[in-house]
Amino acid sequence: MSSKISNVSKSWVTVPENSDFPIQNLPFGIYKTATKTPRVGVALGTKVIDLKAIFDAGHFSNLPFKSTDFENSYLNDMMAHGKKACSQLRLRIFELFELSNETLKTAAQDILDELSQVTMLMPVKVGDYTDFYSSREHATNVGIMFRDPENALLPNWLHIPVGYHGRASSIIESGKAIHRPKGQTKPVDSEPPVFGPSKQLDFELEMAFVTFNGKDLGDGISTKEADDYIFGMCICNDWSARDIQKWEYVPLGPFLAKNFATSISPWIVTLEALEQFRIPGPIQAPEVLPYLKYEGNKHIDINLEVTIAPEGGTEQSVSKSNYKHMYWNMNQQLAHHTVNGCNINCGDMLASGTISGPNPENYGSMLELAWKGTKPIQMNDGTERKFLLDGDTVGMQAHCKNDEIRVGFGKVLTKILPAK
Amino acid sequence: MSSKISNVSKSWVTVPENSDFPIQNLPFGIYKTATKTPRVGVALGTKVIDLKAIFDAGHFSNLPFKSTDFENSYLNDMMAHGKKACSQLRLRIFELFELSNETLKTAAQDILDELSQVTMLMPVKVGDYTDFYSSREHATNVGIMFRDPENALLPNWLHIPVGYHGRASSIIESGKAIHRPKGQTKPVDSEPPVFGPSKQLDFELEMAFVTFNGKDLGDGISTKEADDYIFGMCICNDWSARDIQKWEYVPLGPFLAKNFATSISPWIVTLEALEQFRIPGPIQAPEVLPYLKYEGNKHIDINLEVTIAPEGGTEQSVSKSNYKHMYWNMNQQLAHHTVNGCNINCGDMLASGTISGPNPENYGSMLELAWKGTKPIQMNDGTERKFLLDGDTVGMQAHCKNDEIRVGFGKVLTKILPAK
Repeated sequence: MSSKISNVSKSWVTVPENSDFPIQNLPFGIYKTATKTPRVGVALGTKVIDLKAIFDAGHFSNLPFKSTDFENSYLNDMMAHGKKACSQLRLRIFELFELSNETLKTAAQDILDELSQVTMLMPVKVGDYTDFYSSREHATNVGIMFRDPENALLPNWLHIPVGYHGRASSIIESGKAIHRPKGQTKPVDSEPPVFGPSKQLDFELEMAFVTFNGKDLGDGISTKEADDYIFGMCICNDWSARDIQKWEYVPLGPFLAKNFATSISPWIVTLEALEQFRIPGPIQAPEVLPYLKYEGNKHIDINLEVTIAPEGGTEQSVSKSNYKHMYWNMNQQLAHHTVNGCNINCGDMLASGTISGPNPENYGSMLELAWKGTKPIQMNDGTERKFLLDGDTVGMQAHCKNDEIRVGFGKVLTKILPAK
Repeated sequence: MSSKISNVSKSWVTVPENSDFPIQNLPFGIYKTATKTPRVGVALGTKVIDLKAIFDAGHFSNLPFKSTDFENSYLNDMMAHGKKACSQLRLRIFELFELSNETLKTAAQDILDELSQVTMLMPVKVGDYTDFYSSREHATNVGIMFRDPENALLPNWLHIPVGYHGRASSIIESGKAIHRPKGQTKPVDSEPPVFGPSKQLDFELEMAFVTFNGKDLGDGISTKEADDYIFGMCICNDWSARDIQKWEYVPLGPFLAKNFATSISPWIVTLEALEQFRIPGPIQAPEVLPYLKYEGNKHIDINLEVTIAPEGGTEQSVSKSNYKHMYWNMNQQLAHHTVNGCNINCGDMLASGTISGPNPENYGSMLELAWKGTKPIQMNDGTERKFLLDGDTVGMQAHCKNDEIRVGFGKVLTKILPAK
């Protein structure tokens, strides 16, 4: 019986080839079934492991958790035990499901649910939500389109992981449809603003990370310490209404253009599961200030893809990007966020900002893909898209892959309903 | 025994003249004592009414509350019962303490604590925090100083109650000291940014309102419905580091310049207690879009004052303003915030933005009072202030007053400690 997760480890639960959820992943989420109350689950192949059932059977002894940490509508109570306890918990789950361990095999019926049969819920009760703007390609594209092509990046961009506070209340789970937002826009510069449904509804392809409890107000978290405060990551679709944004955002930033909804994928993939996919980041020039310097590989190679399925149509890939394109990494983002003494809490969510790559097919928003409406995207059903239409279902998926192993995030899928 | 609060109502609890807390006020807060766990209190004169004790004695029968709503670290569980229940609760408290009611007089020792002896705590667990920018004078002053004196107000300002998302985790109670924030600034335009303690630490004089649970995601709250979703108000000091703000805020708005701390006063004064101080607002021209129109008097006459006490020195008044100077009222702010379908939850906080009046003595920030450092404020101890110094204690107080009655908010007091 092995107590260390390696790339050759196998589970007695059958895991299909190319599954996002091999035993090397073990991501955490919240699910319910027709007969089970909301609870913590861990994905393994096509199954969900019921942690409450395993706890009740006494297999988490010597770990600091209690039953209500697992029979819970959110991961927060479990996460409140901190990084070390959650890592030990994941390792215990690995041991219990590792190929040579027979302990739970006969109880499989009670402790495993079919992933295809369960309802996934919001994994985390988000306290504060922060959205960064850390892809150089995205910031450059936006600068070219809306400001000055010669000086596309604003003066602070290479010095600061620019970010802003988002809205936590409207973060929603995959599968929950959104309504097209209404709002004020100013379609004609010389005329007064008008009110109505947004005509420029967009997705933003992002990854987000979820934190443990941080330090007291007044104390910063260094780039070196940052990993200890990060539980894991999920996919994040930061819905945006470009026409509302354009009229409202000067001088205090995006507000109603963003806060109507943000969709996330159901599974939080732990930092440990992503460790072997760490890669070096870009050389940062000009040199960053000392508090933003970091050691080691802190970027991550995560393949990303966006699909659109028109009403009644089939899913079509519209963008392929990668989280490795980030200029600023999570450690820098967290160090910057807290360097002024701002405190973070268990369950806070910090998103990357739109992740665009160097080529047009890597762009992470419709704004960039259709280049402000000048290059409409051709859809398989013969229609075209400058922005998103009612009835469209936007999908985002993410996975890491090397020669030995694939660790995935699953998907976030969201349908767009007409304005109410 | 009267069951209706009027301006001639009296309590059997002695209320000093000019108290902020006559029986017409009855604001809610959270307090503890050496022997009492955190619980809901209501201020009356120099006393705090212990709602948990009154509940346990059976005097809240026929109301939907339970004991743990009152023995609680936050008002949220009590507020979750909604506007109607909270209004009935306040009325029941009025009846119990009205002059002619003898019911609790003999139990006074058990149900009343001395305000001067208790520790006031954070009243509300804030889910999402939004900060508006709704004083025309403040927005104009900032525009004159940093942009174009000829076009001080930005084009959207008269059409939109401009706002942005703030940080909920760093909202703190009166009495809790803050550390001067550190951060990136760019003191010399032609040179790279530097890191260190902010040299332009500022207060912002604001009022904030706290909400009940709102509607589902996707449904807006109209200006007419807004009052039903607002529990009450408190004073809010939206701390700001102007040098950090200047360098970071384009294009996504204030972030580290604000999120190190926001201080609020301990008592939430209900909308009912403020009703008789309602006044008409300014004529809004250009005409606002239909969803921002409102009926009736929705502005409120609240006198505001800011004091600074240098280390070891005495409190000195530096600003007198009034909440009536707001251009956009709470109903418009809430209608705008939700018109895109953004949902609000019980305990969300929405602040006004800096409240400046027409004259220099009414300005609500050091930035404006000392006019970007060009007109330092002379202090009684011979020192002067362009911005705030370590050791300064900033106080803000607020009260409504007419010929018959005074309804006050108490104070928010915060000392500034050196950077860590």
